[in-house]
Amino acid sequence: MATYRLTLEYDGTRYHGWQEQQNARTVAGELRRAAERTGGRVLDLGGSGRTDTGVHALAQVAHLRLSRAIDPDRFLARLNGVLPGDIHVLDASPAPRTFHARHDARSRSYLYQISRRRTAFGKRYVWWIKRPLDVGRIAAAAALLAGRHDFAHFCERPQEQSSTVVVVEEARVAESGDLVLVRLAASHFLWRMVRRLVGTLVKIGAGELEAARLARLLEGSPREAAGDGPAQWTAPASGLFLERVRYAGDPPLGALAPAVAIHSRSGGIR
Amino acid sequence: MATYRLTLEYDGTRYHGWQEQQNARTVAGELRRAAERTGGRVLDLGGSGRTDTGVHALAQVAHLRLSRAIDPDRFLARLNGVLPGDIHVLDASPAPRTFHARHDARSRSYLYQISRRRTAFGKRYVWWIKRPLDVGRIAAAAALLAGRHDFAHFCERPQEQSSTVVVVEEARVAESGDLVLVRLAASHFLWRMVRRLVGTLVKIGAGELEAARLARLLEGSPREAAGDGPAQWTAPASGLFLERVRYAGDPPLGALAPAVAIHSRSGGIR
Repeated sequence: MATYRLTLEYDGTRYHGWQEQQNARTVAGELRRAAERTGGRVLDLGGSGRTDTGVHALAQVAHLRLSRAIDPDRFLARLNGVLPGDIHVLDASPAPRTFHARHDARSRSYLYQISRRRTAFGKRYVWWIKRPLDVGRIAAAAALLAGRHDFAHFCERPQEQSSTVVVVEEARVAESGDLVLVRLAASHFLWRMVRRLVGTLVKIGAGELEAARLARLLEGSPREAAGDGPAQWTAPASGLFLERVRYAGDPPLGALAPAVAIHSRSGGIR
Repeated sequence: MATYRLTLEYDGTRYHGWQEQQNARTVAGELRRAAERTGGRVLDLGGSGRTDTGVHALAQVAHLRLSRAIDPDRFLARLNGVLPGDIHVLDASPAPRTFHARHDARSRSYLYQISRRRTAFGKRYVWWIKRPLDVGRIAAAAALLAGRHDFAHFCERPQEQSSTVVVVEEARVAESGDLVLVRLAASHFLWRMVRRLVGTLVKIGAGELEAARLARLLEGSPREAAGDGPAQWTAPASGLFLERVRYAGDPPLGALAPAVAIHSRSGGIR
């Protein structure tokens, strides 16, 4: 048996998420098929975590166990030769036989791209917000997210979780041209957590919600659950990228930069 | 009658080019339908020039004549409200009644994006070249294009042209991350001219063709036409953007920058 650590990027638009399913096209399903065509028998394949339908990844990490060893560089080239154009393996390296992409991950970071203008090119990779946004308000509200909180209100099906308490290591907001970027990093995330948080930040940035309401929601109090809430404010999948998955010994996160940037020529005309 | 000058960007992937056709979805066809839904009766609609199937535009210009006047800002918002997500009107301004997008244009510029790496996000907006490219060779060859030449070998159906002589005002090459950008500006272009030129530049950059062959082809000599030639080297539509159309009084072209930039996180990982 030979174990590999794969790092891959994908455009999630056409996929029913990462996780393999019987009757739906998924990223892991495509990866398994490509590995079987080029590397031989697949004994085990697992990602660092699931991504939902339509969510992208800049650097998803997976473990792959094959029945026999293959030269990693040749394997990488062959995989990319047969994978669909919207899935690209960035790196394939031999890994210890016990390497497990999900269990061994120390932290994940997600990047969310909000666009302040409509663009013909960006629809797949942004959430376009037509209303004016106060980025200062968004940044101030995002700062509330750092640290240990009960994210029960920001979790789909919280009853299925052993705990809804998460320690957020980084919550950062930056502007880049027409884009507003949000990065969240934590040891793990709850289902839909990033999209509900970004949706809430956008409500605050649009002046439709007070940051104090977010602070109360972060206490997880059931009283806050009534009526309009984070579930209704969920940001669409298109703007969300799994940015990095970090393991022991990995370098820290770099500067916050766009995943896909659209440079309009509108500034140059009249 | 009221005349407007529209500036629009579009992702050409899903369209059979700009020009209206009976039984095919085209950008101008979508624009006409949107204008009729929001601005009233369309008397005339014409672009600065055609773009082929799959070719994009950062700032196509069109004239639109409506049977009655409408507030331009309101019209702009309404148009974008009904247009498909991959077509976006950047500007709508009242224009003199004689304004004609094609006849009045002084020059056009095209941007071509070559990618030196496979990426899950860029397939629609680049031509991915797997072979190593010598960008210095490409830039040196591109410099040969400036000035007056006979581009008969770089034109589809040259017999339909009154002349295949074109004065190229600018031929520039730049690198931006994994992208190699090529800009060509001229008063007008022949059918497929940019794609055949870029295909030839890539052959030269890959070391498969001498720049001297390009120099001979630019003389338009029929002797050069035999066998393998620019028609076979045509670059795909995906990497091509109509960048700017300039009219009397318009500012000069700005710096050469990507249209759609993909920022991989591959630099940050092992």
